[in-house]
Amino acid sequence: MTAERYYVENMWYAAAWEWEVAEADNKLARTICDVPLLFYKTENGDYVGLDNRCCHRSAPLSLGRIEGNCIRCMYHGLLFNPAGQVVEIPGQSQISSGMKVRSYPLSAKGGMIWIWMGDPEQANEEDIYDFPPLSQPDQWRGFERGDYLHYDANWLLIVDNLADFSHVAFVHASTLGGSEAYAYNTNIENLNKLDNGFSVERWHRDSLPPPYHRKVIPESEQGVKLDRCNSMAMYLPGIFLMETLYQPVGEAAAQGQRREYRNCQFMTPETRNTTHFFWDYLHGFDQQNPAIRVSLKESLMQGFMEDKVIIEAQQKLLELSPEFEPKAFTADRAFSHFRSRWKAKLEAENEANPVALKDNPRRIL
Amino acid sequence: MTAERYYVENMWYAAAWEWEVAEADNKLARTICDVPLLFYKTENGDYVGLDNRCCHRSAPLSLGRIEGNCIRCMYHGLLFNPAGQVVEIPGQSQISSGMKVRSYPLSAKGGMIWIWMGDPEQANEEDIYDFPPLSQPDQWRGFERGDYLHYDANWLLIVDNLADFSHVAFVHASTLGGSEAYAYNTNIENLNKLDNGFSVERWHRDSLPPPYHRKVIPESEQGVKLDRCNSMAMYLPGIFLMETLYQPVGEAAAQGQRREYRNCQFMTPETRNTTHFFWDYLHGFDQQNPAIRVSLKESLMQGFMEDKVIIEAQQKLLELSPEFEPKAFTADRAFSHFRSRWKAKLEAENEANPVALKDNPRRIL
Amino acid sequence: MTAERYYVENMWYAAAWEWEVAEADNKLARTICDVPLLFYKTENGDYVGLDNRCCHRSAPLSLGRIEGNCIRCMYHGLLFNPAGQVVEIPGQSQISSGMKVRSYPLSAKGGMIWIWMGDPEQANEEDIYDFPPLSQPDQWRGFERGDYLHYDANWLLIVDNLADFSHVAFVHASTLGGSEAYAYNTNIENLNKLDNGFSVERWHRDSLPPPYHRKVIPESEQGVKLDRCNSMAMYLPGIFLMETLYQPVGEAAAQGQRREYRNCQFMTPETRNTTHFFWDYLHGFDQQNPAIRVSLKESLMQGFMEDKVIIEAQQKLLELSPEFEPKAFTADRAFSHFRSRWKAKLEAENEANPVALKDNPRRIL
Repeated sequence: MTAERYYVENMWYAAAWEWEVAEADNKLARTICDVPLLFYKTENGDYVGLDNRCCHRSAPLSLGRIEGNCIRCMYHGLLFNPAGQVVEIPGQSQISSGMKVRSYPLSAKGGMIWIWMGDPEQANEEDIYDFPPLSQPDQWRGFERGDYLHYDANWLLIVDNLADFSHVAFVHASTLGGSEAYAYNTNIENLNKLDNGFSVERWHRDSLPPPYHRKVIPESEQGVKLDRCNSMAMYLPGIFLMETLYQPVGEAAAQGQRREYRNCQFMTPETRNTTHFFWDYLHGFDQQNPAIRVSLKESLMQGFMEDKVIIEAQQKLLELSPEFEPKAFTADRAFSHFRSRWKAKLEAENEANPVALKDNPRRIL
Repeated sequence: MTAERYYVENMWYAAAWEWEVAEADNKLARTICDVPLLFYKTENGDYVGLDNRCCHRSAPLSLGRIEGNCIRCMYHGLLFNPAGQVVEIPGQSQISSGMKVRSYPLSAKGGMIWIWMGDPEQANEEDIYDFPPLSQPDQWRGFERGDYLHYDANWLLIVDNLADFSHVAFVHASTLGGSEAYAYNTNIENLNKLDNGFSVERWHRDSLPPPYHRKVIPESEQGVKLDRCNSMAMYLPGIFLMETLYQPVGEAAAQGQRREYRNCQFMTPETRNTTHFFWDYLHGFDQQNPAIRVSLKESLMQGFMEDKVIIEAQQKLLELSPEFEPKAFTADRAFSHFRSRWKAKLEAENEANPVALKDNPRRIL
Repeated sequence: MTAERYYVENMWYAAAWEWEVAEADNKLARTICDVPLLFYKTENGDYVGLDNRCCHRSAPLSLGRIEGNCIRCMYHGLLFNPAGQVVEIPGQSQISSGMKVRSYPLSAKGGMIWIWMGDPEQANEEDIYDFPPLSQPDQWRGFERGDYLHYDANWLLIVDNLADFSHVAFVHASTLGGSEAYAYNTNIENLNKLDNGFSVERWHRDSLPPPYHRKVIPESEQGVKLDRCNSMAMYLPGIFLMETLYQPVGEAAAQGQRREYRNCQFMTPETRNTTHFFWDYLHGFDQQNPAIRVSLKESLMQGFMEDKVIIEAQQKLLELSPEFEPKAFTADRAFSHFRSRWKAKLEAENEANPVALKDNPRRIL
């Protein structure tokens, strides 16, 4: 008898900002893809990812104590090494090799810790969709530290939101969009369907700067009409990377007034109904002016809260009526492709490596 | 493969007081019979009832914007007309006829908006159990506006409560009942079993006025023994209409001291475990004295809260033990008949129009 | 078609401290083994245990009124005697013998009310694991009254906790344990596997008094090294009785400095996920000094809160992953035996008296 996976496992997921682990006293408990995990930082400075449950009695290791490179469960004192193996049981000299928990490959890049949820043999750090601007503070200036939001919604609803920017017109008219014209006058250009996602460009021409942008440019530029381009890529499972350009209409060469942004949003399923959302918004001009990043964070947060209301309402309705069949239209091509790629990889994994349903003869309860 | 309906659909349900829609900025989100609905008032003043989920991505239309007779989803901007048809998709010229949500027949009477949950072809406004006193303010004076309560209980438990007034003796001894003698000395008279409910009379003779009545009659009448008659009708799905008469013992002709009330209570299932409860209590004497309606509302609310504690406790116990088999006795005849009429109509609908269980090849999640 | 029991029924469970019933106005509603129950005290002073749901409409009898030895449902006025039989229905002269609720054998000992959840014919008060120190206030001084805690965890997780005292080293190092050495240097001695549980001794030799003990002994004894013995018994379903001895190392005869405690902890399942926990901690020295029991209660509560954090965390993880298979080691022998005895008794009951799954043709809802 086999069960169907809900999540693709052989994939890197954004797990936590490094500062989150530090703030949690170097031991962060976090559920990813329905799996309760512990991320801890060893005294050597390495990150370790383990199942957050002692193999003995199911106590959370996150209540434990870091000892060198190991973590000790503070219930009966079992000591686990970074591979998840028990290396000490107080009051007992023999340790069976079966006394262990699962250890997951981790990798830290640009302040973000990534986790590989599948077969460790197949984990390759080269496959992480690292976002270079996060590591180029002179060129791209982001927030003091990357930000985190928690959504009461399936991560695909957030991917869906980002895959069609026409919503910017209605949801964000007074914040990120600027006017409802954005929905009528922009077009998806160069939709590239990729094996692991898609990329797309969206030009909105000849319009005044939208509110969030206007707040960070000089008075003299506020009335200048601009062409705006959002060039974005979305990769599985939910890695959103975007380049945004504003340039005066017809004056593409006027470099002095070109303004660029870089934006990353990493969506990681916590459960089927909740999502970890990591993000940063970086600007490529006037990098030394702290007022800009403060203003951008405030504007973007306002926009995200506008999204969150709708997305969490969608989630509630979908939980009430799981049989709902969405009616698609043209603008859904990008997300439909993304969804089908996810499904294909999931089916391939289910086929290659069926999940056995187990009986359990030795339950605690 | 078919599923069983839980609710009769070809039936009028009390949906909302008109003032509730007005207070919700003319867009009221309300679930009825497990269906999330939107009630909005067009700029023409008509009421429209639609499924409260955009057919595109399941965003709630109640977060939308009324435009003339239409409502616009404020996620991607789809515009719906009162028939539920999409009449505009920003950025797209063609609209498939399948782009629509379900629209429900509505009808406003006596301040209450009624909804037909079934086949629109069969909806007939004549079938609404409108309560004339609600539209006769000179003769019957009710509250400033009809009132609303929310119950954490299946609506049939409230119907059950109202179907046997012997509970008045124990639950409401010091409010609506007056004494426990009410349970021992009154009898159901003239129980009429109807196709769509029942009607019944209950006389309680030769007793002092109960507390709620005593509070609104002159000092001189307080010691006068009365015969009391509650004459009520209960119609499917949960329409309770009652005439109450107090008259001095043996002096039925003494019109000056006869006092009458009219009472309506409309129970509408929100979900299987929760109920919308609409009510008014009208008096047919001294109509210009505002102190009377204030006193009656306070007394009745006190009584309803006494009911609510018990009914919501019943609900919790029934949820814990859905296999509970009630042991009936004589006084349950009225409710038993009501229950069997509901069941008969439900079975007829299930037979005439089986509900197909669908596979869903195009899920968002 | 049959269902499996989750709880052994032919067994005495700790139900409530007598003072709890008194404080609840002599009518205590409490769920035990998933069964909503009412415990009331008759005007004669007897305790009665009934299903806490009227057989008529499922209203809770705990909202009722004690009348002599009976309790009246305050919905429609049915009067139940201590056997659970309806003896009065207002407004109706005939009463069918089927009008009744289940009545459970109760027995009060040492301030605790015990309930027999199974066949009344098999109930024998002699089988109650009464704890004599609770009834010997001159010799063993406990709290002003036995204490109650509520756990959001299956009761077996608490039994599990108490079955292996090595956790004292890690969970309670600074409260009840004293040092982590307790886990390494103590050994289970004399594990007796019983048909209905186990008993075990655990000596921890040659160590300073642990914090909770140090707080209640004279200054002069604080530096004296002691041998410590916990001698405990655990009986089904979750009756924990412990004798604790502290004696100066190698001076077993020095009676003046021996200190003894008695401790009882009764774990009773409320539901599969929650537990009633009753306890007292009694000291056998300086019985007239009220500061001692105050100090002990504070220390023990601190220790229990340390346990509660871990045990409720275990519960959450087990609910998330019911397929978890614990990896046992030597110290689990006691609990493993206990678990297997519970299972054996449960299977025997399921076999001897299968639970029928019923259809229900007469539902209220």
